[in-house]
Amino acid sequence: MATLCRPSVAVPDHVITMEQTLALAREMHADHPQRDLVLRLIENTGVRTRHLVQPVEDTLRHPGFESRNRLYEAEAKARVPGVVRRALAHAEVEPGDIDLIVYVSCTGFMMPSLTAWLINTMGFRPETRQLPIAQLGCAGGGAAINRAHDFCTAYPQANVLIVSCEFCSLCYQPTDLGVGSLLSNGLFGDAVSAAVVRGEGGVGVRIERNGSHLVPDTEDWISYAVRDTGFHFLLDKRVPGTMEMLAPALKDLVAQHSWKIPEMDFFIVHAGGPRILDDLCHYLDLPPEMFRFSRATLTERGNIASSVVFDALARLFEEGGVENGAGGLIAGFGPGITAETAIGRWVGAAPVAKVVVEVPAAEKPVVEAAVPTR
Amino acid sequence: MATLCRPSVAVPDHVITMEQTLALAREMHADHPQRDLVLRLIENTGVRTRHLVQPVEDTLRHPGFESRNRLYEAEAKARVPGVVRRALAHAEVEPGDIDLIVYVSCTGFMMPSLTAWLINTMGFRPETRQLPIAQLGCAGGGAAINRAHDFCTAYPQANVLIVSCEFCSLCYQPTDLGVGSLLSNGLFGDAVSAAVVRGEGGVGVRIERNGSHLVPDTEDWISYAVRDTGFHFLLDKRVPGTMEMLAPALKDLVAQHSWKIPEMDFFIVHAGGPRILDDLCHYLDLPPEMFRFSRATLTERGNIASSVVFDALARLFEEGGVENGAGGLIAGFGPGITAETAIGRWVGAAPVAKVVVEVPAAEKPVVEAAVPTR
Repeated sequence: MATLCRPSVAVPDHVITMEQTLALAREMHADHPQRDLVLRLIENTGVRTRHLVQPVEDTLRHPGFESRNRLYEAEAKARVPGVVRRALAHAEVEPGDIDLIVYVSCTGFMMPSLTAWLINTMGFRPETRQLPIAQLGCAGGGAAINRAHDFCTAYPQANVLIVSCEFCSLCYQPTDLGVGSLLSNGLFGDAVSAAVVRGEGGVGVRIERNGSHLVPDTEDWISYAVRDTGFHFLLDKRVPGTMEMLAPALKDLVAQHSWKIPEMDFFIVHAGGPRILDDLCHYLDLPPEMFRFSRATLTERGNIASSVVFDALARLFEEGGVENGAGGLIAGFGPGITAETAIGRWVGAAPVAKVVVEVPAAEKPVVEAAVPTR
Repeated sequence: MATLCRPSVAVPDHVITMEQTLALAREMHADHPQRDLVLRLIENTGVRTRHLVQPVEDTLRHPGFESRNRLYEAEAKARVPGVVRRALAHAEVEPGDIDLIVYVSCTGFMMPSLTAWLINTMGFRPETRQLPIAQLGCAGGGAAINRAHDFCTAYPQANVLIVSCEFCSLCYQPTDLGVGSLLSNGLFGDAVSAAVVRGEGGVGVRIERNGSHLVPDTEDWISYAVRDTGFHFLLDKRVPGTMEMLAPALKDLVAQHSWKIPEMDFFIVHAGGPRILDDLCHYLDLPPEMFRFSRATLTERGNIASSVVFDALARLFEEGGVENGAGGLIAGFGPGITAETAIGRWVGAAPVAKVVVEVPAAEKPVVEAAVPTR
């Protein structure tokens, strides 16, 4: 069994609102032939605020790939440890209990990956396996959960730490002026998140099955052009329509598990943009409330790449979770176009049993001790 | 059970010999204060020949990171499919039988990874899981084997395809003039390799245990500086001595399995340089012949990064393997400094049983049918 425990999420202090984004786009691209389309598209994202590792004016400068990547490393080292500590605490495990660290990030590149630094500085054992994944983009969050599930299936007593570190603002490319790029400039935000998958015990989503699906011949719909100036995010205009192609794959996975989508209680999906959520409502025949966690992530933080699923899941935890045993689905979507999907059941906190200790009448009152039942 | 089947390996046609390397170094760095040290270090590698995706004169030019990475993609697409087809044939599986593709490469960057293109063009199922690993460098080959082993442990009927694509020559940086860089220029070569790990059946190394080990506080001994000109390989002069630190980890893993190193029959290790092999002989108390496959890879192809272990393993297969049930070890070493080690037993081809079909005397001779047993 593999239980995905409560994620920890942190966002940087610098905030940019939609109004600021629109004003910037209006001003910077005053002569752009498709400026009004871009403004409409950004408005339609519904992204109210995004958090950035630098003030807006610094974000808009491009000091070179080397400098950007150095900032990525410094910010990751400053921001990841606190998030990791909280994720470990949520799962009630210590660094020494972790057998594998899956590190997902598509917005900076380090070799060795941050996993080596984390092991060296945070008390993880030297035997901790390292799995850094950079090339699955926004699907990386779902992939990390699924590989952690696989690992705990192979080694049922193992624990896996997942870290997602996405500073999308460090991939801003001022010279990219296509509609897809300008829309992306108004969509992506920065965040760091972490979660533990416990092989035994734990409160959260007990994963029962996972699956991957690649939509044939869509490799170039979401991609990076790797240039001297770094990673250039390319977004095809057909991307918002991909849920029509991916919804059947989600249904298939659920059907393989002999479950039915209408009977499931929670849906934590990558909120790449508003159309993804709208279309999932339509193709899975679900009410919008079912995607309220992903929608809230998109609205308050923008598309935070592989961190979206952890941020949305953290909101489910904040709401108190669902009923014990209720079924749900977690899905990351990203380049490929790939969906990485997991289905599982909510496992709540062990109920606290009231133990009434009978004591002689003279020693009243009755003492009640809270003892967890497992 | 997870059986690592016969790898398939391909190297490009362009060859550079040690004599050519030395002549180039002598000429290009005539005024370098440590030129003679560099020449001695290169001679000591024992690397006789290396294969390159471009002629030497083109390799020495740096047309920019973008151009290099475009060449990486084109060469990968040209060279990987043939290697994959042969690896599948060696393992007697079809593309549709593969459940996970692990793609390791630290010498070019693509998002989506080549996995998406392979699935789209080579007949793999859209459900094939994708695991691209870029940041484990030379340890990536060992890591790929180990994650494939984990996956088949979780799903015993699964099959995993591993692809390693390393064009080290595309990371040549003409402006890097440190001793470590100049030595690296005489050490690394290009190669593509692939191998299948079968959950059931298969001839090769049946993996029984795997482990990872990070040498504390050596993160910056092997690393990439990510610059506008691409990945700059940085090699600390302490790296050749790391086997003293890693040999105990290899011994520990073997001891956990209740095996003893002197009783094991094959050792397939990353031949990062000659000192690694010499030191392993010393610290594991093994004769040099035990590392003949890795030595041959180093001599004939140079350090081909994550492909070394597959090239060395292919040589064990060429030699006919070892006795059925004989134990061995496979280890990748790379940045971190990380060792990814697997131990397992050789599983030979199913012996062909002689079935004597008795027929009436009149119909002699006796018919013999070859029936594989398992």
